Amino acid sequence: MMTVERPAEQVDPAEPGFRYTRKVFFYETDLAGVVHFSCYFRYLEEAEHALWRAAGLTVDRAGASIGYPRVSASFDYKSPLFFEDELTIVARVHAVTQRTIKYSFVFTRGETAIGIGWLTTACATRQEDGSMRSVEVPPGVVASLRAAAGQA
Amino acid sequence: MMTVERPAEQVDPAEPGFRYTRKVFFYETDLAGVVHFSCYFRYLEEAEHALWRAAGLTVDRAGASIGYPRVSASFDYKSPLFFEDELTIVARVHAVTQRTIKYSFVFTRGETAIGIGWLTTACATRQEDGSMRSVEVPPGVVASLRAAAGQA
Amino acid sequence: MMTVERPAEQVDPAEPGFRYTRKVFFYETDLAGVVHFSCYFRYLEEAEHALWRAAGLTVDRAGASIGYPRVSASFDYKSPLFFEDELTIVARVHAVTQRTIKYSFVFTRGETAIGIGWLTTACATRQEDGSMRSVEVPPGVVASLRAAAGQA
Amino acid sequence: MMTVERPAEQVDPAEPGFRYTRKVFFYETDLAGVVHFSCYFRYLEEAEHALWRAAGLTVDRAGASIGYPRVSASFDYKSPLFFEDELTIVARVHAVTQRTIKYSFVFTRGETAIGIGWLTTACATRQEDGSMRSVEVPPGVVASLRAAAGQA
Repeated sequence: MMTVERPAEQVDPAEPGFRYTRKVFFYETDLAGVVHFSCYFRYLEEAEHALWRAAGLTVDRAGASIGYPRVSASFDYKSPLFFEDELTIVARVHAVTQRTIKYSFVFTRGETAIGIGWLTTACATRQEDGSMRSVEVPPGVVASLRAAAGQA
Repeated sequence: MMTVERPAEQVDPAEPGFRYTRKVFFYETDLAGVVHFSCYFRYLEEAEHALWRAAGLTVDRAGASIGYPRVSASFDYKSPLFFEDELTIVARVHAVTQRTIKYSFVFTRGETAIGIGWLTTACATRQEDGSMRSVEVPPGVVASLRAAAGQA
Repeated sequence: MMTVERPAEQVDPAEPGFRYTRKVFFYETDLAGVVHFSCYFRYLEEAEHALWRAAGLTVDRAGASIGYPRVSASFDYKSPLFFEDELTIVARVHAVTQRTIKYSFVFTRGETAIGIGWLTTACATRQEDGSMRSVEVPPGVVASLRAAAGQA
Repeated sequence: MMTVERPAEQVDPAEPGFRYTRKVFFYETDLAGVVHFSCYFRYLEEAEHALWRAAGLTVDRAGASIGYPRVSASFDYKSPLFFEDELTIVARVHAVTQRTIKYSFVFTRGETAIGIGWLTTACATRQEDGSMRSVEVPPGVVASLRAAAGQA
């Protein structure tokens, strides 16, 4: 049996977070007239990377030895998004271990709750044979991310 | 507090399921040299729709009055996918309520476990003002899906 | 024999145009470490729609009776784009007929020429059977677009 | 003045070509209810890579020293594609130089002409500083592609 255990997760909207906004593009909609559900995972990655930039960091470029492969991702959809909507995402560092970072992403459009996403990433280094090996998150990364999110 | 509760979920690999295969396309990879994590949600939707076709059904086309908006989606990543990999997805109807269908999707490449995805969809009808209203899944849909997946 | 005739096309960089900027997202790169060539067509559509918004217009939303299906699209690639690059697009109304609008899009990153794209769209109305029928571009649309691009 | 010259191009449908088929996925449609115009460039790349595989070749994976960056791409749209349509693409090697390969791609759905795409790729090698340098297409590649397309 493959088992996936998910504890209850909570986002405290009173806690500070990093704010990212963007407009919905035409090509992100589908024939139902709304943003395709897979695009929400692209949006939350945009917010993740904007948080990294705000922290003076960048996730890796081609050739770099450290990367952040995804361990798990999830989204709970509340209301649809439409073409040209202004989406706001509040990103927070939710939990960390020595080798992983877990983020929450609260999506809103004005006063409307759009949904909540979660992303857990591992820190990994590429080995000579091309495979990835889990390593510890470099010192200072989490503190910088939390500071950029106002969570320090 | 916004709370998201996730009970432990299990996929029993001994249970029959609907088999969908496809090759990884170049444009689905990213600069890390692997398939981008958002594409897994597109793959599992492909498997969902292939299951519907195998059941003699189709999710709606533009203009149809009933659709299946997503309530939640998640994926747990085990191993990366590469360009031109042959991916196999086994889709199963995991749980149903009167208004929702929850699927599991087990991803493998040969003997390698790639990961497990979950998708919960609601049955909804479009109202005159354009908004969606939750309705009961039409009679026979779940039985047809289960039969096509060999779960009957 | 199917024949496609393309006259020589020129963009005069001294002519005013509408300026659109955006950062390259991670998921737009491919395993070669650069932005996938198909994404350039998404970028130029973003610039097209930003020009429409600057003109106080919007391309249609679901259910609207008029749309702008694409007649042809092309791109000539000069230099690659990388993750987190700042891309600038200058959009211009290049030529119009009673039923079509042709745009040019000059892509740059700082002083580097990235390439030039072309897009020809037709104005069309959706008929009761779902098919599209070519119609004249509504009065004022082209003048508003040219004004927003500084070409008036 | 930046000038783009395009001579008239012709596809001779009597000439043999490599046949690639695939079904339209839901996430490739947009709010107009049809496949987004950018996806056609992804489809023609799929056909290009399937032709390479049929020729016993593969375009490069991450880390390989030779790649095929795109020089230009274009598509002329005749009829829209819809969700679950069965698309057929006939790919042909249209013209070659020592350093480039130009393909044509004729898209049909049953008897309906969907459109014609063109793709010119250069052969390039990655240099130590990460930049690409144009090189000659390796011996035998074009002959193998033409043979796989039935054009030999």
